[in-house]
Amino acid sequence: MKSRAAIAWEAGQPLELTEIDVEGPKAGEVLVRIVATSVCHTDAYTLSGADPEGLFPSVLGHEGAGVVEEVGEGVTGLAPGDHVIPLYTAECGQCKFCLSGKTNLCSAVRATQGKGLMPDGTSRFSLGSQPLHHYMGCSTFSEYTVLPEVSLARVSKAAPLDKICLLGCGVTTGIGAVLNTARVEPGSTVAVFGLGAIGLAVIQGAQMARAGRIIAIDVNPDKFELARQFGATEFVNPKDYSDPIQQVIVDLTDGGVDYSFECIGNVNVMRSALECCHKGWGESIIIGVAGAGEEIATRPFQLVTGRVWKGSAFGGVKGRSELPGYVERYMNGELKIDEFVTHDMPFEQINAAFELLHEGKSIRSVLHY
Amino acid sequence: MKSRAAIAWEAGQPLELTEIDVEGPKAGEVLVRIVATSVCHTDAYTLSGADPEGLFPSVLGHEGAGVVEEVGEGVTGLAPGDHVIPLYTAECGQCKFCLSGKTNLCSAVRATQGKGLMPDGTSRFSLGSQPLHHYMGCSTFSEYTVLPEVSLARVSKAAPLDKICLLGCGVTTGIGAVLNTARVEPGSTVAVFGLGAIGLAVIQGAQMARAGRIIAIDVNPDKFELARQFGATEFVNPKDYSDPIQQVIVDLTDGGVDYSFECIGNVNVMRSALECCHKGWGESIIIGVAGAGEEIATRPFQLVTGRVWKGSAFGGVKGRSELPGYVERYMNGELKIDEFVTHDMPFEQINAAFELLHEGKSIRSVLHY
Repeated sequence: MKSRAAIAWEAGQPLELTEIDVEGPKAGEVLVRIVATSVCHTDAYTLSGADPEGLFPSVLGHEGAGVVEEVGEGVTGLAPGDHVIPLYTAECGQCKFCLSGKTNLCSAVRATQGKGLMPDGTSRFSLGSQPLHHYMGCSTFSEYTVLPEVSLARVSKAAPLDKICLLGCGVTTGIGAVLNTARVEPGSTVAVFGLGAIGLAVIQGAQMARAGRIIAIDVNPDKFELARQFGATEFVNPKDYSDPIQQVIVDLTDGGVDYSFECIGNVNVMRSALECCHKGWGESIIIGVAGAGEEIATRPFQLVTGRVWKGSAFGGVKGRSELPGYVERYMNGELKIDEFVTHDMPFEQINAAFELLHEGKSIRSVLHY
Repeated sequence: MKSRAAIAWEAGQPLELTEIDVEGPKAGEVLVRIVATSVCHTDAYTLSGADPEGLFPSVLGHEGAGVVEEVGEGVTGLAPGDHVIPLYTAECGQCKFCLSGKTNLCSAVRATQGKGLMPDGTSRFSLGSQPLHHYMGCSTFSEYTVLPEVSLARVSKAAPLDKICLLGCGVTTGIGAVLNTARVEPGSTVAVFGLGAIGLAVIQGAQMARAGRIIAIDVNPDKFELARQFGATEFVNPKDYSDPIQQVIVDLTDGGVDYSFECIGNVNVMRSALECCHKGWGESIIIGVAGAGEEIATRPFQLVTGRVWKGSAFGGVKGRSELPGYVERYMNGELKIDEFVTHDMPFEQINAAFELLHEGKSIRSVLHY
């Protein structure tokens, strides 16, 4: 079948809007009509060429929501008409990782997903004779896309797809990092480095966890007002201080914070985030994705005296098990999503959405097919 | 009063055996007669001059056991004749740290302890007109020493002091890192880097925690037999492989270990210990003390994909609360200490004990006053 799509032909070039060929779902696969998708920094990172694992040509996009159109042989958990959120972190329920009870990093489709292919080692996308790579197992920048059944979370049909698409990455990642990875306790002091969508979602998660103090840190003070709306209680611009930011935060908090979150992808900020934690128990969670080959460093004394360094991917959330509950919480008014959407636009304006992201003018632009 | 003691006059020089003056206990303090003490790598590190916080002249030693001789004003929890283990990590029960329920790093006497002084800012040790610094709040290299009440764990009088002195540092540090810091679960796979006293104690702790596989790693294969006696099930000499040791361990364990422990103080080994952990849940605990200014590094991807980097000081053990239980377990045969003692010698041979440590010929030498 034909599908509207945006193709990433090569690094650093705008996406090409065109019509591609999408093959129907094979065994265990599902054809989904994407209704809305957003643009995340990871898409931009791959498109920039900085991602050493980036593949071209490909159909990018991993933060979307849609409707099941057709299911392949053996698919029993989904049926046409179901509303779904694509998952770049699958949940098979049967692999060593799923069974561990300790992680959401399912290994079921990982190997082929990393190669831009479906689990059988082939692509469902092409343009003429040119096969196109899948991306993060999702490729939401095609109106019709094919995913393994294990990579789809079925959610309530009552929820607006052009909002809950954000649960496919940013919002879930931030909230999950607080609730699953850090397990922030009521009354805790929390520092959040970077106030993009992830940072704002962390702030929301910290408020849901009833943190006592939520310190929002960014070099762009224009972001503070939105951070306040999500629940931040204090605001720090590192540019206002001559001391290293970790020292500033330690001084503000009588010894350091209970939990810190790095939501940028800057290895120097990752160090600051660790070192602003309280001796004896402070935990720092890395969420941001650093550049290829970059390293984090600190003195081991930081850890020996009780700080803990962790990371989080997709907020430690098991998508098929947990996303339906996130959608319910959104519908019940317990979880904000609308506030992340700074721009709505037709799919055809996808390159403009990338520009807004680069310019720091959007939190999330939602593209409507 | 007069006391036999060994004085560290300057970095890199042997200790001088002599008789020093010890002032009686002031308010909140306790005079202890040390019966036995061991020599730990930390004493050697400070004596070498490499410790930037090392002070001279001083009375070193922090792994000992003795009998209360006299208590100062206001001391209510101890009385003459009580058997005690000196604690370089105090436990006041009242500070922010003790009350947190999250750490053993009591702050009650930390500031003055770091300056080699008693909490009132003075020393109880002198030679003629020359004051001598205390060390780690313990100074077990003086037969008579003075400690704050909060720095003494009262233990069973039935236990041999020349064995349980090892609970003052190494044995407790290793076991506690497994039971308190890592909380190793039954069936876990564990890697232990470095088979000195700490590493052997970690192995013992892992066996107590009923780990399934305990992999002992050292470049000196002579240590493997003792490691086996403590419970190690596999033995790896990194010199036998051309691959990096983390890769060797990952290959041996179908993806990595559940818990690893660095018991050396080498920042490169700390990285290996982290990176040999299993994706999704592996935790690495730094116990060894690195050289001044040295840093650990890794790619943040290691943490984002679920590994956790921690550290442990005194095994996360709250000395006054927990050491009596450790002594009981030793008395009941549940905890090995005797096997760590490779040498017994009179206190006067203390410099020989340091030499044995440097040459790697001893696990622990116990000095008897």
